[in-house]
Amino acid sequence: MSGTWGSKIKISIFGESHGKAVGIVVDGLKPGIEIDLEYIGEQMKRRAPGRTKLSTARKEQDEFQILSGYFEGKTTGTPLCAMISNNDIRSQDYKKTSNVLRPGHADFTGNVKYCGFNDYRGGGHFSGRLTAPLVFAGALCRKILEGKGIMIGSRIKSIGKIKDKTSFEPISTNKYILQELSKDTFPVLDKGCGEKMKGSILKAREEGDSLGGVVETAVVNLPAGIGEPFFDSVESTLSHLLFSVPAVKGVEFGQGFNIAAMKGSEANDQYYISEGGSIKTYTNNNGGILGGITNGMPLIFRAAVKPTPSIAKPQKTVDIENKKNTILEISGRHDPCIVPRAVPVIEAVTALGILDLMQE
Amino acid sequence: MSGTWGSKIKISIFGESHGKAVGIVVDGLKPGIEIDLEYIGEQMKRRAPGRTKLSTARKEQDEFQILSGYFEGKTTGTPLCAMISNNDIRSQDYKKTSNVLRPGHADFTGNVKYCGFNDYRGGGHFSGRLTAPLVFAGALCRKILEGKGIMIGSRIKSIGKIKDKTSFEPISTNKYILQELSKDTFPVLDKGCGEKMKGSILKAREEGDSLGGVVETAVVNLPAGIGEPFFDSVESTLSHLLFSVPAVKGVEFGQGFNIAAMKGSEANDQYYISEGGSIKTYTNNNGGILGGITNGMPLIFRAAVKPTPSIAKPQKTVDIENKKNTILEISGRHDPCIVPRAVPVIEAVTALGILDLMQE
Amino acid sequence: MSGTWGSKIKISIFGESHGKAVGIVVDGLKPGIEIDLEYIGEQMKRRAPGRTKLSTARKEQDEFQILSGYFEGKTTGTPLCAMISNNDIRSQDYKKTSNVLRPGHADFTGNVKYCGFNDYRGGGHFSGRLTAPLVFAGALCRKILEGKGIMIGSRIKSIGKIKDKTSFEPISTNKYILQELSKDTFPVLDKGCGEKMKGSILKAREEGDSLGGVVETAVVNLPAGIGEPFFDSVESTLSHLLFSVPAVKGVEFGQGFNIAAMKGSEANDQYYISEGGSIKTYTNNNGGILGGITNGMPLIFRAAVKPTPSIAKPQKTVDIENKKNTILEISGRHDPCIVPRAVPVIEAVTALGILDLMQE
Amino acid sequence: MSGTWGSKIKISIFGESHGKAVGIVVDGLKPGIEIDLEYIGEQMKRRAPGRTKLSTARKEQDEFQILSGYFEGKTTGTPLCAMISNNDIRSQDYKKTSNVLRPGHADFTGNVKYCGFNDYRGGGHFSGRLTAPLVFAGALCRKILEGKGIMIGSRIKSIGKIKDKTSFEPISTNKYILQELSKDTFPVLDKGCGEKMKGSILKAREEGDSLGGVVETAVVNLPAGIGEPFFDSVESTLSHLLFSVPAVKGVEFGQGFNIAAMKGSEANDQYYISEGGSIKTYTNNNGGILGGITNGMPLIFRAAVKPTPSIAKPQKTVDIENKKNTILEISGRHDPCIVPRAVPVIEAVTALGILDLMQE
Repeated sequence: MSGTWGSKIKISIFGESHGKAVGIVVDGLKPGIEIDLEYIGEQMKRRAPGRTKLSTARKEQDEFQILSGYFEGKTTGTPLCAMISNNDIRSQDYKKTSNVLRPGHADFTGNVKYCGFNDYRGGGHFSGRLTAPLVFAGALCRKILEGKGIMIGSRIKSIGKIKDKTSFEPISTNKYILQELSKDTFPVLDKGCGEKMKGSILKAREEGDSLGGVVETAVVNLPAGIGEPFFDSVESTLSHLLFSVPAVKGVEFGQGFNIAAMKGSEANDQYYISEGGSIKTYTNNNGGILGGITNGMPLIFRAAVKPTPSIAKPQKTVDIENKKNTILEISGRHDPCIVPRAVPVIEAVTALGILDLMQE
Repeated sequence: MSGTWGSKIKISIFGESHGKAVGIVVDGLKPGIEIDLEYIGEQMKRRAPGRTKLSTARKEQDEFQILSGYFEGKTTGTPLCAMISNNDIRSQDYKKTSNVLRPGHADFTGNVKYCGFNDYRGGGHFSGRLTAPLVFAGALCRKILEGKGIMIGSRIKSIGKIKDKTSFEPISTNKYILQELSKDTFPVLDKGCGEKMKGSILKAREEGDSLGGVVETAVVNLPAGIGEPFFDSVESTLSHLLFSVPAVKGVEFGQGFNIAAMKGSEANDQYYISEGGSIKTYTNNNGGILGGITNGMPLIFRAAVKPTPSIAKPQKTVDIENKKNTILEISGRHDPCIVPRAVPVIEAVTALGILDLMQE
Repeated sequence: MSGTWGSKIKISIFGESHGKAVGIVVDGLKPGIEIDLEYIGEQMKRRAPGRTKLSTARKEQDEFQILSGYFEGKTTGTPLCAMISNNDIRSQDYKKTSNVLRPGHADFTGNVKYCGFNDYRGGGHFSGRLTAPLVFAGALCRKILEGKGIMIGSRIKSIGKIKDKTSFEPISTNKYILQELSKDTFPVLDKGCGEKMKGSILKAREEGDSLGGVVETAVVNLPAGIGEPFFDSVESTLSHLLFSVPAVKGVEFGQGFNIAAMKGSEANDQYYISEGGSIKTYTNNNGGILGGITNGMPLIFRAAVKPTPSIAKPQKTVDIENKKNTILEISGRHDPCIVPRAVPVIEAVTALGILDLMQE
Repeated sequence: MSGTWGSKIKISIFGESHGKAVGIVVDGLKPGIEIDLEYIGEQMKRRAPGRTKLSTARKEQDEFQILSGYFEGKTTGTPLCAMISNNDIRSQDYKKTSNVLRPGHADFTGNVKYCGFNDYRGGGHFSGRLTAPLVFAGALCRKILEGKGIMIGSRIKSIGKIKDKTSFEPISTNKYILQELSKDTFPVLDKGCGEKMKGSILKAREEGDSLGGVVETAVVNLPAGIGEPFFDSVESTLSHLLFSVPAVKGVEFGQGFNIAAMKGSEANDQYYISEGGSIKTYTNNNGGILGGITNGMPLIFRAAVKPTPSIAKPQKTVDIENKKNTILEISGRHDPCIVPRAVPVIEAVTALGILDLMQE
């Protein structure tokens, strides 16, 4: 079971990189929600490949077709299916490596899991292309959340060893900056640092190598009381979705791994009554979540994205057909760094998770 | 919905810290599995409070009663319910602070979520006491996994700022050491470092403060092919459960956040054919998981545990009944560091997650 | 997986007839709901054995203990567990027949399913005793529904070949009669017919035989718009639960099997605007449901309950231990007709189903 | 949530009668299963409209496109999406009645449920057209079951008041007859009776009226031990799916409602050891299920299908836009009797349910 998720909003994704189409069914949306097709298109463009030198040259318009659940510009309340056809496919690039396991990819595990019957072309069902329908669904949910005043924004915190040391915390409450970030294809706070990051990506590309990075995300204006203790905690729900995004290897909320090195007296977010009368905390080390439930402070988390496994450098690997060690040099078109394209995906699954937790 | 989880093995937890009992229903166990009551008891003792100076003085025998699904020493295949009565309760310790929000705890969020109707005594349903039934169920699952040769073991990697720099990786494949660790109440690799950790915990206690830490866990002898891409990935499944454990604020697999700073050529785990003929990787930066599916290498992850929120030091907070700022000094019996007691809980939910993914 | 059900309200039942206890965890109840223990006790008494000559002589007080989720007289919003201890157990009655399959019971299928590891005593997990926790949970839900003006009531429509020909339809809208029925342990409309039914049950008992019957249930004051098309239709939801009640072999809504013999012009419920301005139908052949969704008319259904399989008459059967044909004469205490005790169970699962569909 | 179902095989249906397409995502199929496209096409033809005078004149080829999860003729093990485009649409037929509630249809309840935002054309999401993807998925599952020797077949037991009195029971074990029935578009046992049924349908059409009927289905060669007690009983699972099929108003297993009028000594299926050594029952009043679990005897059930609500005869109804009583005369193309086309749908959901219960 690889493609279904959700409680109050159930999604079901399908598709392979080089199959006919990828898509998603979203069940549980309320009826009468206006769908902003332009907004969805913009979010999908942020994820789409082939736009800049920083990403793969594969060009996909990622044009979606809504097949159902949509009538006269609004949701009907019945299952909404969106489909994105696969167009710019060069399967031959992949064909020749089908027996040679690409390190860092799911070639080996997919082969074991599906007994060799999976569509291996371009990573098949494991392809990052499957995140296109996630961005579609996330953009839908995000617009619904924005209608409630809830905004999601991210910044790239690091690319490889280059870290943006600007604090995200004050920024995270600034709606205007957050909105700018949420449209950006390379959202950073320190623009100079951002240029260095881009430079390092281009350098990695030249070297036939790749880079990873860390994405930091904020959800603001969330009311207190969202989420549940234990298995439906905000952390459980969001981490479940975030780790479903290919290449994510770490997730932390608030101070995350740093909080483990703090004393209780430093880590505890102490309370006060704000001028508006609402209860706030002086710090936000818990990232807006206590006992699995939002406390009204900005929800903050970070996701670690590993470097793109497809690199041009020769790598030691195994030919599973001929059962022998071999050397692989990957050709084809690949992202030297997936992080910028991962940002809208991370935001999309965040929107999905939050709406699922909030929806009655 | 706070207490249900699972796909092939469904669990349902219940209880409050100062209610009649805490417990769990486990549905989906195969019939005829011998239950090793002694083993379960040992695992529960690792979690139980009141054993050492490092933990709270609350003494609970954590004696479980199996109410159903168990006949003539074996599972019946029908739902198994285990109940642990609450005995050593001093509700008065908590009563006086019921309106004063304890920073770092779920008092505020629980109050919002449940409109003030939740049992606030001792944290109520949010209490770490709810992890006792999780350890029960986990021990059950763990024994089943051990029957398949699969072992789970952890080490405390850091307490506060004290880090054990010993590498876990070679250790993680040593069954003997893993078994020793899995019985230990303070499992470390560098014993000297362990003593320093214990010292720092006692010092924190004296200061009326508390410490957090990082737990590193390995699952070895897992066959390749466990887990699914996307929403049922091993990372999604385990992180979902790990973030359900109170106090966990970060989870990372393999190199985790470090992998984000590596180049693709460093991060990719290159393949070779081992002497035994199986396919292995030279490194294990992906922590045994690719595309959400196990690759046969040890599964490695780390969880960040925050310092215990209950500290004796005075803290700024709010009295929600009287709607005013106030100062709180927490009395009562509390763990200066929850990390050692979190270890068996982390291992327990890991066993639950793995068995759920493996079970046909 | 035998014991979990639900979407917005999740239940998990456990227990065996002759084990320590039977019980249920109910997760998803709103906080702050007053629990009317007396009302629950009354409903459980309707199901409890040993009250009249019409039922088994096994006497169980069915006294429930609420272990969690209940604080100061109200629900907390966290999982509520209720446990009913097994007291009046005479396992020896069952012991002697453990290898001899009782016709009509689940002895054979349970043995195959659980590979012989199930607790066979008194039917074990298959026992009607497991319906006691269902009545507990149903009574809870029912009281919540009554708070919204929604009432559930049933009448015994037939016992064996004796049919009560009184029409249920006008009655079903009479709140007063419905309330009377919902307290009755042998609810009928035609009292004379009811006496004949009781007589036939006593006669069956004397003959060492048993009888079945049909229960007809109405839910009134349900708003239009409850339920969903297809897999979450009201019919799907309720039939799922009704067929989980042991001995139910048929379920029909509205005219049910009769509607198959009607013409469209007869079967269609034609619409009109009522005096109050709401839209009503002249007839109610669809039993208050169209397209899986309630239409505001009374929800009407019938459930067929088979005769109790435990009869004193000699029956041909098989000894599975010795693999030979044999003759079985069942002793022990058994209901000559389970129908009256099935009524509160049918009403309970109806309340569960309706609340799950309605709850936001 | 209207379109998702399943435990080990999860399906998600989508679409509206006059939207772009209807379709289904099937998640959880094993990899490497050969897909018999011809077989699926045949089953879909049995359901497709416009083939005979007995059905609506709307002609849909019901040509499906498999978008994913299918590679080199076999399942990949990843989600399989099939889409059926809507072609022969005459929306104007429906447009004019959009405010006038069609009795017996979901116009009213859909309007309430979706606050008027649903696509009303041709019944929208409530349309029987949504059963086309169900037949697709069912045919897939059915072929898998046939590979295990398990066969599903049905006969029309009654149309309106015309009943085929031939007993289905001996037939149900005859593989050859079952296979014939499973290809037939009007499967009956008594051919003469079948002709009378067809005649009565044509007569109803002439009268501007419609007829319902009862479908009787058998699943043979099912091993004992499929299903679970209580909420995952075979009866719960199948009735849930059967009541999801539009127009089904009653479901009964084995003797169903008749068993309620039998004595225990008549109803109990007594056991014997068959010549082959397996345990069988002399009768099959329980329809192959005891305690929710199959006993190895043929699984037998009946579903009551109501007469098509769309009839030409004038009907009293309400104009919801203008809030007044009115008279409706439905034009357009409609089935005078949906029963023959319901047969493959009933068989399809049966295959889905059985495979979900059987799959490991």
